[in-house]
Amino acid sequence: MKKTAQTDHPILDVIAERWSPRAFDPERVLSEVDVAPLFEAARWSASSNNSQPWRFVYAFRGEPAFEALMAAAVEGNQRWIQRASVLAYSVAKLQAEDGSHLWHNRHDTGMALAHLLLQATAAGYAVHPFGGFDSDKVIAAAGIPDGFEPCTGVAIGYPGDPTLLGERGALRELAERSRRPVAEFAFHGHWPAS
Amino acid sequence: MKKTAQTDHPILDVIAERWSPRAFDPERVLSEVDVAPLFEAARWSASSNNSQPWRFVYAFRGEPAFEALMAAAVEGNQRWIQRASVLAYSVAKLQAEDGSHLWHNRHDTGMALAHLLLQATAAGYAVHPFGGFDSDKVIAAAGIPDGFEPCTGVAIGYPGDPTLLGERGALRELAERSRRPVAEFAFHGHWPAS
Repeated sequence: MKKTAQTDHPILDVIAERWSPRAFDPERVLSEVDVAPLFEAARWSASSNNSQPWRFVYAFRGEPAFEALMAAAVEGNQRWIQRASVLAYSVAKLQAEDGSHLWHNRHDTGMALAHLLLQATAAGYAVHPFGGFDSDKVIAAAGIPDGFEPCTGVAIGYPGDPTLLGERGALRELAERSRRPVAEFAFHGHWPAS
Repeated sequence: MKKTAQTDHPILDVIAERWSPRAFDPERVLSEVDVAPLFEAARWSASSNNSQPWRFVYAFRGEPAFEALMAAAVEGNQRWIQRASVLAYSVAKLQAEDGSHLWHNRHDTGMALAHLLLQATAAGYAVHPFGGFDSDKVIAAAGIPDGFEPCTGVAIGYPGDPTLLGERGALRELAERSRRPVAEFAFHGHWPAS
């Protein structure tokens, strides 16, 4: 299902077409070969001093690791993640050698994830990032070492039938996408007087 | 100048072609019409609960605001930013109503910036994000209110002659791009034993 953004200025098709569906096709599956280009796209993202602070841990539906990673998500998210073919978490290296916190690395990990989302969109996959998960559970399930912190979950699969989500879920799935206009977040020269 | 990434898997052209040049053409300029699609691309990025925590403040070379924003960058960056046509900073809403810090918003602002970088690349612009700036100076120059923090500077313009950067700068500009391989940051099922 396409929900192309109604843009005020022309933008790249893949950016206009990326959105966050919850309806995944429970019959179709992705493989290592399918996800490799997604991580490759993340790989070529920009980062401060080329530090590449992003990591990903992922599993395919049917694997014990998928169940463990899914159990770290909040219950409301598990309901739709269960039909995704791949579940991944982005992870940022957040602790420097001297123990200080590298907050900027969340930002750079976000840039890498944005590449992954666009590459998945271009491949025709449904891809949905989510913040609703228990960080400690992800750390335990994936064996994430000290110095690294989970950033974002991301469910990937083939698009499915919105009615799988129930009546209310299907309505939400079909609702038009919305964003604040550019004038409300991009300021020429100076922040606007409030 | 193109420095297309040598990828191990096929990815979107625009992702393979994005890089961070320092050589901008000092003669050619961008206008509001040129930058509008860049912010439009950022607009349609994903964010936690569609909170859209990103903001941007920008100025065109020749404007007093450009000088003020440029003076906030570290000296080494000013040397190449001075030839860019547009200087912007991404800004994240980091303080919630209850005063708590929304660290995740740096991540979402990074995703929006990634869209901007790709849209600029698609338009044929040179675009270079940088972290080397004095946050307090950006806040003062742009009048950024409490609750918001600058994330990343970004210089935008038309590609220029690398020799503008001097001999050492030109060598760096022409060097091949490098990244750690996917196997070193994307882990199937579980973090690797160290």
